Amino acid sequence: MGNTFKMLTVVGTSPESYKEAIDNALSDTAATVRNLSWFEVKEFRGRIADGKVAEYQAKLQIGFRVEVP
Amino acid sequence: MGNTFKMLTVVGTSPESYKEAIDNALSDTAATVRNLSWFEVKEFRGRIADGKVAEYQAKLQIGFRVEVP
Amino acid sequence: MGNTFKMLTVVGTSPESYKEAIDNALSDTAATVRNLSWFEVKEFRGRIADGKVAEYQAKLQIGFRVEVP
Amino acid sequence: MGNTFKMLTVVGTSPESYKEAIDNALSDTAATVRNLSWFEVKEFRGRIADGKVAEYQAKLQIGFRVEVP
Amino acid sequence: MGNTFKMLTVVGTSPESYKEAIDNALSDTAATVRNLSWFEVKEFRGRIADGKVAEYQAKLQIGFRVEVP
Amino acid sequence: MGNTFKMLTVVGTSPESYKEAIDNALSDTAATVRNLSWFEVKEFRGRIADGKVAEYQAKLQIGFRVEVP
Amino acid sequence: MGNTFKMLTVVGTSPESYKEAIDNALSDTAATVRNLSWFEVKEFRGRIADGKVAEYQAKLQIGFRVEVP
Amino acid sequence: MGNTFKMLTVVGTSPESYKEAIDNALSDTAATVRNLSWFEVKEFRGRIADGKVAEYQAKLQIGFRVEVP
Amino acid sequence: MGNTFKMLTVVGTSPESYKEAIDNALSDTAATVRNLSWFEVKEFRGRIADGKVAEYQAKLQIGFRVEVP
Amino acid sequence: MGNTFKMLTVVGTSPESYKEAIDNALSDTAATVRNLSWFEVKEFRGRIADGKVAEYQAKLQIGFRVEVP
Amino acid sequence: MGNTFKMLTVVGTSPESYKEAIDNALSDTAATVRNLSWFEVKEFRGRIADGKVAEYQAKLQIGFRVEVP
Amino acid sequence: MGNTFKMLTVVGTSPESYKEAIDNALSDTAATVRNLSWFEVKEFRGRIADGKVAEYQAKLQIGFRVEVP
Repeated sequence: MGNTFKMLTVVGTSPESYKEAIDNALSDTAATVRNLSWFEVKEFRGRIADGKVAEYQAKLQIGFRVEVP
Repeated sequence: MGNTFKMLTVVGTSPESYKEAIDNALSDTAATVRNLSWFEVKEFRGRIADGKVAEYQAKLQIGFRVEVP
Repeated sequence: MGNTFKMLTVVGTSPESYKEAIDNALSDTAATVRNLSWFEVKEFRGRIADGKVAEYQAKLQIGFRVEVP
Repeated sequence: MGNTFKMLTVVGTSPESYKEAIDNALSDTAATVRNLSWFEVKEFRGRIADGKVAEYQAKLQIGFRVEVP
Repeated sequence: MGNTFKMLTVVGTSPESYKEAIDNALSDTAATVRNLSWFEVKEFRGRIADGKVAEYQAKLQIGFRVEVP
Repeated sequence: MGNTFKMLTVVGTSPESYKEAIDNALSDTAATVRNLSWFEVKEFRGRIADGKVAEYQAKLQIGFRVEVP
Repeated sequence: MGNTFKMLTVVGTSPESYKEAIDNALSDTAATVRNLSWFEVKEFRGRIADGKVAEYQAKLQIGFRVEVP
Repeated sequence: MGNTFKMLTVVGTSPESYKEAIDNALSDTAATVRNLSWFEVKEFRGRIADGKVAEYQAKLQIGFRVEVP
Repeated sequence: MGNTFKMLTVVGTSPESYKEAIDNALSDTAATVRNLSWFEVKEFRGRIADGKVAEYQAKLQIGFRVEVP
Repeated sequence: MGNTFKMLTVVGTSPESYKEAIDNALSDTAATVRNLSWFEVKEFRGRIADGKVAEYQAKLQIGFRVEVP
Repeated sequence: MGNTFKMLTVVGTSPESYKEAIDNALSDTAATVRNLSWFEVKEFRGRIADGKVAEYQAKLQIGFRVEVP
Repeated sequence: MGNTFKMLTVVGTSPESYKEAIDNALSDTAATVRNLSWFEVKEFRGRIADGKVAEYQAKLQIGFRVEVP
């Protein structure tokens, strides 16, 4: 029988870059969920202050393998 | 470091209006989740009985801030 | 007042068919969640090995009724 | 064997609200079609006059059960 | 001059499979409409009972040639 | 109370052009439906023969005002 | 020759309802632009505070007729 | 440093053809905006009168280079 | 350095089922392309004859690893 | 067993019209590929010079039957 | 009463990165528009020269608060 | 007569960044295809290992000018 995966939708943010926004989303999710397996970027947005990017925001769907006891 | 947000997909319903369907979705979610921050409407549907709207249904994505200990 | 439903995104897999991939997604979800009510297929994909389908993958959104105490 | 449903696409309008636009679409459809069962909102638009909404327009797909003799 | 086709949106259902849901949609449509020519699947959904698929639902657009007298 | 409109999905075809394909869709629809009001192009496709367009195909949604007695 | 229309994208907000959010978007646009003609709703979102909708947000595309001297 | 472009959304219309509707949108825009560079068609619609196309409507996004002093 | 993959768009057909349509698409592609790795279903359609499915059609994007010498 | 089709994505261009842009895409493709069968228009764009369309661009997916030896 | 926001569509470019393309879009917009508040990435594209990225292109929707006198 | 362009769909990967994933896709494509002209990003995904991005994956459509002899 095949594995089953659940997907969480998470928005990571960073004042620096989308790369760090994605890293933050993954590490905060990995703090409570095991077996993270892949992600899909659903949206890139950002907050602006003083005409510059103040916060990079990346909405991800993150898939993890379900552990069936 | 930036905050991280998780998003739940919730379908609220009401016999009265989409406004109440959204309110119900939020209050039922707030009963168990803290820090609700924003929502995005993904779909409006409804059930019909006797040629009238019997139930308004609003599918929402609801974002809340993750508390990192 | 109307019922409220939450939706989970789940990817079921099977070496045999999309039907079994969907069944696996539902039964693995039903193991820990009550009141499953409906699902929507969001994507069909698959892994290939030796020029044949090695794994059918079905991404579903699954709705279940929230029990409010 | 399962039921079969047909879907009509209908645009309801109202000078007052989207709620009434949906009600008008359903009641005008119910005048000639039986067994209306559910609807899906496909688009909200409107006509403007004097800088105000002059007509609310809601495009719906309406499903009704087919009666097989 | 070219042929003209109309398209109907039909949701077929079956307790068994999407294949049968599609077959049911087509045969119920063919009972009253001639010249069915092609279909496009717009959505696969389903109803769940006891953690299993209780009803497969396939939304189709079905094209048929218009007979101009 | 506002007017209500129904929409038909029609595929017009022509060996000559999309313009004629749209014209054919409209005139064949107007042969049996009154009060045609507007259309929205949903898809342009075509059939190829001998490396040339053999048939232009335009899928339209056509709206017409419902006459309520 | 036909008229030409330009479209503005505007997000209206309101603490009360989407209806008022749309009204606000239109009246603030009408303050500086003439000949507003129609709008299309592109997105409904909202801000949440204390588990309730704190701000309704409606993203609209608003069309207005261009005056050619 | 790279150039920056702004995009306007414009609906051109014509009683004759989509070609002329696009031409009208461009010439009316060029009357007040310099450096028009490219366009993307977002939608083709039309108004119907007497079962014929009365007005071709083309919604375009038009890009133009921003002149930085 | 990471692997690179190319994707082909292929429409498989079968008089029997979507499963066989997908199998046919893969085996006909595997006849000339090595390293097939995964596929994504983009569309399910079909041809109708005598009110029944005469041909199942599945449009796939198929990814294969590029061999860099 | 059913036929299999491959699809190519091709952008045809013309200084004159979308019709000629499509013709050019097909004839340039037909120069090296046999059995062209159908196409689907994916996008209409264009380049602007002096406030007029300088180049019509049509992105097509073109299907052709695979010859299995 | 709530604030109202307008959105501009801007394509920023850079020979270096998408990050710089976004920065350029924002700073060129901020040169003439006050109160920039947030942006949404709509598309990433690029120009290629000599088999390398010659220009990163990011299409953004940028929201700014309207000042009502 | 206008130029014609073909588009390839390529997924580039990198353990480091999306920038490198795009570079890899382009350089591996340029190894066998001349006249690469532009690309459009269709999807950003990634593989996760140990709660971190293990592989950045960028799906591109790459356009190149067809050389007609």
